[in-house]
Amino acid sequence: MNLIGISGALRKASTNTGLLRALKSLLPDGVGMEIVTLHGIPLFDEDVIAASGKPAVVTELADRIRAADGLIIATPEYQFSVPGVLKNATDWLSTCNHPFRWKRTGVVGASAGALAGTARAQYHLRQNLQALEAITMPRPEIMIVHNEEKFDGNGELTDGETRQRLGKWLKAYLDWVEKKP
Amino acid sequence: MNLIGISGALRKASTNTGLLRALKSLLPDGVGMEIVTLHGIPLFDEDVIAASGKPAVVTELADRIRAADGLIIATPEYQFSVPGVLKNATDWLSTCNHPFRWKRTGVVGASAGALAGTARAQYHLRQNLQALEAITMPRPEIMIVHNEEKFDGNGELTDGETRQRLGKWLKAYLDWVEKKP
Amino acid sequence: MNLIGISGALRKASTNTGLLRALKSLLPDGVGMEIVTLHGIPLFDEDVIAASGKPAVVTELADRIRAADGLIIATPEYQFSVPGVLKNATDWLSTCNHPFRWKRTGVVGASAGALAGTARAQYHLRQNLQALEAITMPRPEIMIVHNEEKFDGNGELTDGETRQRLGKWLKAYLDWVEKKP
Amino acid sequence: MNLIGISGALRKASTNTGLLRALKSLLPDGVGMEIVTLHGIPLFDEDVIAASGKPAVVTELADRIRAADGLIIATPEYQFSVPGVLKNATDWLSTCNHPFRWKRTGVVGASAGALAGTARAQYHLRQNLQALEAITMPRPEIMIVHNEEKFDGNGELTDGETRQRLGKWLKAYLDWVEKKP
Repeated sequence: MNLIGISGALRKASTNTGLLRALKSLLPDGVGMEIVTLHGIPLFDEDVIAASGKPAVVTELADRIRAADGLIIATPEYQFSVPGVLKNATDWLSTCNHPFRWKRTGVVGASAGALAGTARAQYHLRQNLQALEAITMPRPEIMIVHNEEKFDGNGELTDGETRQRLGKWLKAYLDWVEKKP
Repeated sequence: MNLIGISGALRKASTNTGLLRALKSLLPDGVGMEIVTLHGIPLFDEDVIAASGKPAVVTELADRIRAADGLIIATPEYQFSVPGVLKNATDWLSTCNHPFRWKRTGVVGASAGALAGTARAQYHLRQNLQALEAITMPRPEIMIVHNEEKFDGNGELTDGETRQRLGKWLKAYLDWVEKKP
Repeated sequence: MNLIGISGALRKASTNTGLLRALKSLLPDGVGMEIVTLHGIPLFDEDVIAASGKPAVVTELADRIRAADGLIIATPEYQFSVPGVLKNATDWLSTCNHPFRWKRTGVVGASAGALAGTARAQYHLRQNLQALEAITMPRPEIMIVHNEEKFDGNGELTDGETRQRLGKWLKAYLDWVEKKP
Repeated sequence: MNLIGISGALRKASTNTGLLRALKSLLPDGVGMEIVTLHGIPLFDEDVIAASGKPAVVTELADRIRAADGLIIATPEYQFSVPGVLKNATDWLSTCNHPFRWKRTGVVGASAGALAGTARAQYHLRQNLQALEAITMPRPEIMIVHNEEKFDGNGELTDGETRQRLGKWLKAYLDWVEKKP
């Protein structure tokens, strides 16, 4: 099984990119995951497309999503929604012949502070993914609060209990990708 | 009274930018509106901010929003949510000392086809604006369907009935900005 | 294949219950659908449950949902969300050992006027169904505007074009239930 | 100043009703709050209205909301949205000549467990309140997690830190009601 993990964060030390690395480290034998960040995708502007066409970084990402057996998106939360960077990427990808169609998708996220743990961003992302015809796993959910206590300064997960939760979530997700209920 | 109108679209011939121009043409004497597009605002990346600081285009826009008596945002709808370009701008603006706080804000939008008229984008935008501490006018709403029939190829409003609806909405909005219920 | 259709409306002449009847009339041979309304489900009150237990109408509905191969919910829209009557029913059903888990679910709706066609209700319902672990079909969507022109006074669909749209939607839904992508 | 507090919970020992009692106990001199639960409001059914008219419990509640200087709604969260009981009440109240129009409204909630604290219910409620033309305070928000540790078995708030948070929120809310920014 071949997964793709997309981080909605550009920051090098992002805990959301770190969350994908932690999930990758927990994968069983025979399952791989490529982790992708959204660097290099320009702002979506139809006038630019008309003049210069679609950038290769976008069409290549669309192809990799299409080829994957499952997709995991880790999203930060900015101002009660997804980062513009992540939404901008799906605006581009929506022009690439339905790469998300029926794709089994898991949504996860980590944020600072006691509340939400990217809940608001995740529901906006799920509605966006509905438009893209992805199938998102309803439950369980992963919303990590207090990421400042659970990841180090490089965005590496250091908290054992969170690692356990991720392991359980990952098991549920892989079952769901494989059995296609 | 001094308003600012922000278009969530970059396309030169955008009907949403045209919607703001139509609203501007309907303003009564003594009320002005500056129309702003989001060209030149880079993708939000905390590593870039740490290295190079905040771009002037962002801090200047924040100042203009702060100075305005009211704000109107015209949003396209991409994939059941706001354009990444618009969300990206509010990600930046949220770092600029609360330019939206208590700002009386109207939300409008136009889209192609028979359905929605940017409804989904508008509710996501309203939640985003809540995070930014704006006060959004609850009703009436403006959601223009079939924009391909109501605007010309340059994004100019040509439909008389829509112009009338905009006039009524604008009257309600200006009253609401002035009386601050 | 055995479907269950739940109407979120109590009104006898409801166009949403009529929408389910129209869908039923379009089913191919070998596919059946039981249409259910929510009459008789009391207001959810944990004190009443503690005193009197769960009403049979609720546990029987849970069993019928669990037994069905697919579920279609037709929702009216009241005040930018689902009817309280529909939400109240899912509050009860959530106590009945996961009747919605992995259930292939289609969401449809009809409303008066030019706008929305129950769009806002449908997205709230989808989030509610996520909590209940249903799998909702992302697209196509059915949001019928101007139901006053398309249904007669008894809630019977009279509009041929809408019937055609329903037929296409139903074909996509049945494929999606059968193939389980 | 005369406030009304509506609890979305029917349970006698509800922590959300208790949250309103805690807020009431923190009110400064000269500010009162009537606390209302939704007992006795029947399920909304247009056929019943046509046959029997609107129940007095609904029209009286509408009058009390209309008369109040501000409104606070405390909502539980059931299955990622508001309780059906609460939504059902606003379905009724929407037929009573706009009792919520321009009403300064605060949204609060408490839930069990580590996550959300009724976040999902609150955003659905805010969209519902938009339809009803209420003005909702954007921030600060009150979303109490782990209510099982902070309230006793009768729904009385026992946690000092939460009481402090409520005091700060209440101060912000009362300022916002008074100054009408």
